[in-house]
Amino acid sequence: MTDIDQLCISTIRLLSVDAVSKANSGHPGAPLGMAPVAHALWQQMKFDPKNPHWANRDRFVLSNGHACALLYSLLHLYGFDMSIDDLKQFRQLNSKTPGHPETHEVPGVEVTTGPLGQGISNAVGLAIAQKQFAATYNKDDLALSDSFTYAFLGDGCLQEGVASEASSLAGHLQLNNLIAFWDDNHISIDGNTNCAFTENVTERYKAYGWHIIEIPHGDTDLGAVKDAIEEAKKVDKPTLVRLTTTIGFGSKQAGTGSVHGSPLKADDVKQLKEGMGFDPEKSFVVPTEVYEHYQKHVGENQKIYREWQARLETYKQKYPKEGAEVQRRLDNKLPENWADALPTYTPDDKPLATRKLSENVLNAILPIVPEIIGGSADLTGSNLTRGADSVDFQPPNTGLGDYSGRYIRYGVREHGMGAIMNGIAAYGANYKNYGGTFLNFVSYAAGAVRLAALSHLPVTWVATHDSIGLGEDGPTHQPIETLAWLRATPNISVWRPADGNEVSAAYKSAIESTSTPHVLALTRQNLPQLAGSSIEKASKGAYTIHAAENPDLIIVSSGSEVSISIDAAKKLAEANIKTSVVSVADFHTFDQQTRDYQLSVLPDGVPILSVEVLSTFGWSKYSHEQFGINRFGASGKADDLYKFFEFTPEGIADRGAKTVQFYKGKPILSPLNRAF
Amino acid sequence: MTDIDQLCISTIRLLSVDAVSKANSGHPGAPLGMAPVAHALWQQMKFDPKNPHWANRDRFVLSNGHACALLYSLLHLYGFDMSIDDLKQFRQLNSKTPGHPETHEVPGVEVTTGPLGQGISNAVGLAIAQKQFAATYNKDDLALSDSFTYAFLGDGCLQEGVASEASSLAGHLQLNNLIAFWDDNHISIDGNTNCAFTENVTERYKAYGWHIIEIPHGDTDLGAVKDAIEEAKKVDKPTLVRLTTTIGFGSKQAGTGSVHGSPLKADDVKQLKEGMGFDPEKSFVVPTEVYEHYQKHVGENQKIYREWQARLETYKQKYPKEGAEVQRRLDNKLPENWADALPTYTPDDKPLATRKLSENVLNAILPIVPEIIGGSADLTGSNLTRGADSVDFQPPNTGLGDYSGRYIRYGVREHGMGAIMNGIAAYGANYKNYGGTFLNFVSYAAGAVRLAALSHLPVTWVATHDSIGLGEDGPTHQPIETLAWLRATPNISVWRPADGNEVSAAYKSAIESTSTPHVLALTRQNLPQLAGSSIEKASKGAYTIHAAENPDLIIVSSGSEVSISIDAAKKLAEANIKTSVVSVADFHTFDQQTRDYQLSVLPDGVPILSVEVLSTFGWSKYSHEQFGINRFGASGKADDLYKFFEFTPEGIADRGAKTVQFYKGKPILSPLNRAF
Repeated sequence: MTDIDQLCISTIRLLSVDAVSKANSGHPGAPLGMAPVAHALWQQMKFDPKNPHWANRDRFVLSNGHACALLYSLLHLYGFDMSIDDLKQFRQLNSKTPGHPETHEVPGVEVTTGPLGQGISNAVGLAIAQKQFAATYNKDDLALSDSFTYAFLGDGCLQEGVASEASSLAGHLQLNNLIAFWDDNHISIDGNTNCAFTENVTERYKAYGWHIIEIPHGDTDLGAVKDAIEEAKKVDKPTLVRLTTTIGFGSKQAGTGSVHGSPLKADDVKQLKEGMGFDPEKSFVVPTEVYEHYQKHVGENQKIYREWQARLETYKQKYPKEGAEVQRRLDNKLPENWADALPTYTPDDKPLATRKLSENVLNAILPIVPEIIGGSADLTGSNLTRGADSVDFQPPNTGLGDYSGRYIRYGVREHGMGAIMNGIAAYGANYKNYGGTFLNFVSYAAGAVRLAALSHLPVTWVATHDSIGLGEDGPTHQPIETLAWLRATPNISVWRPADGNEVSAAYKSAIESTSTPHVLALTRQNLPQLAGSSIEKASKGAYTIHAAENPDLIIVSSGSEVSISIDAAKKLAEANIKTSVVSVADFHTFDQQTRDYQLSVLPDGVPILSVEVLSTFGWSKYSHEQFGINRFGASGKADDLYKFFEFTPEGIADRGAKTVQFYKGKPILSPLNRAF
Repeated sequence: MTDIDQLCISTIRLLSVDAVSKANSGHPGAPLGMAPVAHALWQQMKFDPKNPHWANRDRFVLSNGHACALLYSLLHLYGFDMSIDDLKQFRQLNSKTPGHPETHEVPGVEVTTGPLGQGISNAVGLAIAQKQFAATYNKDDLALSDSFTYAFLGDGCLQEGVASEASSLAGHLQLNNLIAFWDDNHISIDGNTNCAFTENVTERYKAYGWHIIEIPHGDTDLGAVKDAIEEAKKVDKPTLVRLTTTIGFGSKQAGTGSVHGSPLKADDVKQLKEGMGFDPEKSFVVPTEVYEHYQKHVGENQKIYREWQARLETYKQKYPKEGAEVQRRLDNKLPENWADALPTYTPDDKPLATRKLSENVLNAILPIVPEIIGGSADLTGSNLTRGADSVDFQPPNTGLGDYSGRYIRYGVREHGMGAIMNGIAAYGANYKNYGGTFLNFVSYAAGAVRLAALSHLPVTWVATHDSIGLGEDGPTHQPIETLAWLRATPNISVWRPADGNEVSAAYKSAIESTSTPHVLALTRQNLPQLAGSSIEKASKGAYTIHAAENPDLIIVSSGSEVSISIDAAKKLAEANIKTSVVSVADFHTFDQQTRDYQLSVLPDGVPILSVEVLSTFGWSKYSHEQFGINRFGASGKADDLYKFFEFTPEGIADRGAKTVQFYKGKPILSPLNRAF
């Protein structure tokens, strides 16, 4: 280790410690332990702080996100948009330096981490996207994409199932552009890892098909880090580097659990600074030669960046068709008029399951929009997520596809799929990626779904078998609470389309989204194509699909219950109860409409009844009375279940009549009218 | 294989196929493939169909729950409460034979399975409970507990992260009472497992610390199954038996994905029956000698059961103290007057975080209620879940505890913990088990939480850091949607206690529960002890904690916002707005109160405002207006966040005044008054 290396590492360590100390909150242990590997790795990485979104940059993922003081320090030293003042604002309200790294807040933060296991799984997605992009556009004489994804992860990440799922798939996919450093420091919050985590990690990763490199002296051996990266770049597998470090290196508490998540004591900071030759009275100190050292690397990287820009120009001239497509994607623009390809339907078209209508959409748009890629968690034939002409994304030596393939066989790994989807979206290049499973099992991926929403990642869940309508598989597979959960989560568009036009509207919203994840809740069973639906109307989130003049009752419903509600409305009309039906395709989209439009759909003066074969929880947002299922479902034929739970025209009409009766003579405010 | 073995296996296969065919729905592939191992294994198992809840029975878990026709066939043949008519009702509404096995519906079904990865993880919990029970009560001369847990699992289960988490922990814990059979048939729904699942499973399980046995000819080699069980019983680790089978054995579609989840065609069934020497025109046939064969085994088992009963009697005489405790637990009774130990508080007691108050409860009741065991997913010091005198549940050779220990170090494995908790509860012996993590990360375990509710398992989640009040860790760790999700799920009691008395009430409800899981949402930050709270009042779920006479406004709130709401009420009183405050400690409990009581708390005629620093979704169930946070949180000091989001006496009073103003002159119905 040279003197300047040592000075750089000390600076990283002390900036991190100072940030934690000033906040009096945070995690000093991992930054102290991982500063050497961070310093050594970033020296090998290709990126430009002034162009942080450069498509061919190497990606760095801090899966142990609690170590973010380390990352923020690096971002500052390398000249990203991260000042010393930002570091001083560590963990303060409305700062650029929150307690865990949030991607949409800070350039240079590739993905949002903190919830353990997510980052390394995002990294698998980043590596998939890079491979797919490279295989799609690279030419023998012109490689546009040859970057690597690097990740740090700790013992916590390795214990999480989501990381296991993603790592197993990464091994299968032979993602040799993925290089992960395991901070093997033997400490987690409960103390020594020997209390709960004694498996042989390297043997496990070998079993997944990863290459293993061991660095026994990770506190000091910078050369080994460089060598490991070189070795990892040569193998045909993802690489896990086991790096033995000392948590809290240099602190009096080094090597113990107490240094993990609490600020160091003042005297400990003092001896730490003295030991590193820094003035113990000063904080947030960066020696000039440290800035200079990192800026030298930046200068070299900026040269590489300009070379790449030139290469892109050459590419566009030599391969104008692909070049235009690449440029379009780098500009985050969709193909012009792509949405014209979305199928539309009239009531004369035959009834189809919305999962089948979803397949129709995919078959229509996949040939037109190359950035759409997707897969399923081992339910392809049920989710109907694979385009007719799709090629699987597979290592060519499997004989099952190639890396330009756009269909991903995720295996039975919903949570891993969710986190990988987030990684693909975070890669950029306008990727619009989707994943299929049963709606009920989106819950398995709840940790990843919420991070998609928090991180503003436009991923799409094709969530089929969305209710008791799936029938015989029974309550273990029938969602009841799932949509309530998703609708309660900020920044998720949760579509439950009622027919083909609404399915097309849902996809239009999903594909055009740049910052909101989508969940499309789709039926197993056939639904009729409805009169009165259209892509345009559904694109408002909710609209009157069946209008009565001066209605006595409005039924708000979604998905498979809309057509039954319309039948109920006709029944009620026979009993002189004029009834309109509103299809609420997506709460999130409806909430963004003008108040005038919203009140035109759900006006004052009319009682409103919601109808959905799921938990009623939350429907009072748009209704006065709710008809739903506030118990678990049952195993039986779908038709039997609908009858049993009384979701028939008669059953709905009965609740409708009771609602009208109950509100008779009472003044009725629209549920949209609020006090504040 | 003897003739009678073959006849038994053919009978199991054909009963399963007939059930699927009659339902025209279900999964014939796995039952056809696994009938031989099922036959061979159950012959080695200790259980009594007439006493299906016998504490010392061997447990059988069908982790690949879609193969349930196999299980139902076995239950019938062995004489459990499962008739041929029940088999004929397979997958029909209100039958005993739902599409996936549900534990509380069918004796002999130990746990509810179908959602993949859960069963094998439940099995780890069953094995933990058995070991803990044995280590607690067995004497050198009298072993009350020496049973084994067996599990079947398929490739799907092995891909799920929850199974990885639980299996890693099982290896660490050296659970040599756990014997799992992996149905290595190379097929999942997407086809050959080589499309997504090419890891080396046996090497992975070796890395977890499991013993591996391979049975290459699982279709025929019954002797190998018997030998494997004998071998597994001798080692000091859990065992994974890799059993190579042919999915859909005997079908024309054998060995393919198409036999996995669809009924066989009629001609296929015909040739299958003919090939096995059965009349192709008859269905649901059981040869007399098959019944006799199984009843012979039942007879032997009943002898073992009676011997065990005698042993228990001897035990009770020889060890009257422990014997009485064992008998009490087998009767599912709590110690008399246990609840007297619950701490109570007055406003003079100092402010404490509800997580700390939870620790106080645990320290008070752990010494009194031996069936309470629990742990944390590596957040012990944050969740405060470990009793002061607790011993860790650890293999003695680790030097860290022993198997009678009652504190489980789950590692960073929330989903695995959830599924293991379910297994411990399913074991019986009155186990009341809890697990700690941050409320936000209960979502990681959503798959297991919903199965606890569906299966009526009284587990308790100690979910601390329940809001933005956790502060600097930021939005990645701050739940917003989590309580809406949990409250929307049927049969979960979701407590958010406001002070020490309410924490005690929450534990009272949790420990006394026999069929409802509990989630206790607890603060990181200190809260005052409130005037007007009591265990008794809080035990109604919601109650008026601060009463104004003829109020102009009612604020309904929970947890940390109750005391702020009371301060707001005092402010409003100064502005001549008489305001009552209702603490809603648990929606589920309040919903079970009488209508009169409910309306006494939330009467007609008064506008009601809800206040909670979480998503407002669902609060309209109990309120007209909602004040909450319908965005993600932020990283900052807890005090700063409460001010930023305006959850201050002033901020709440402002919404309160607006609510009163808005409803002035309008007739107001209680939100509890419904049309139907």
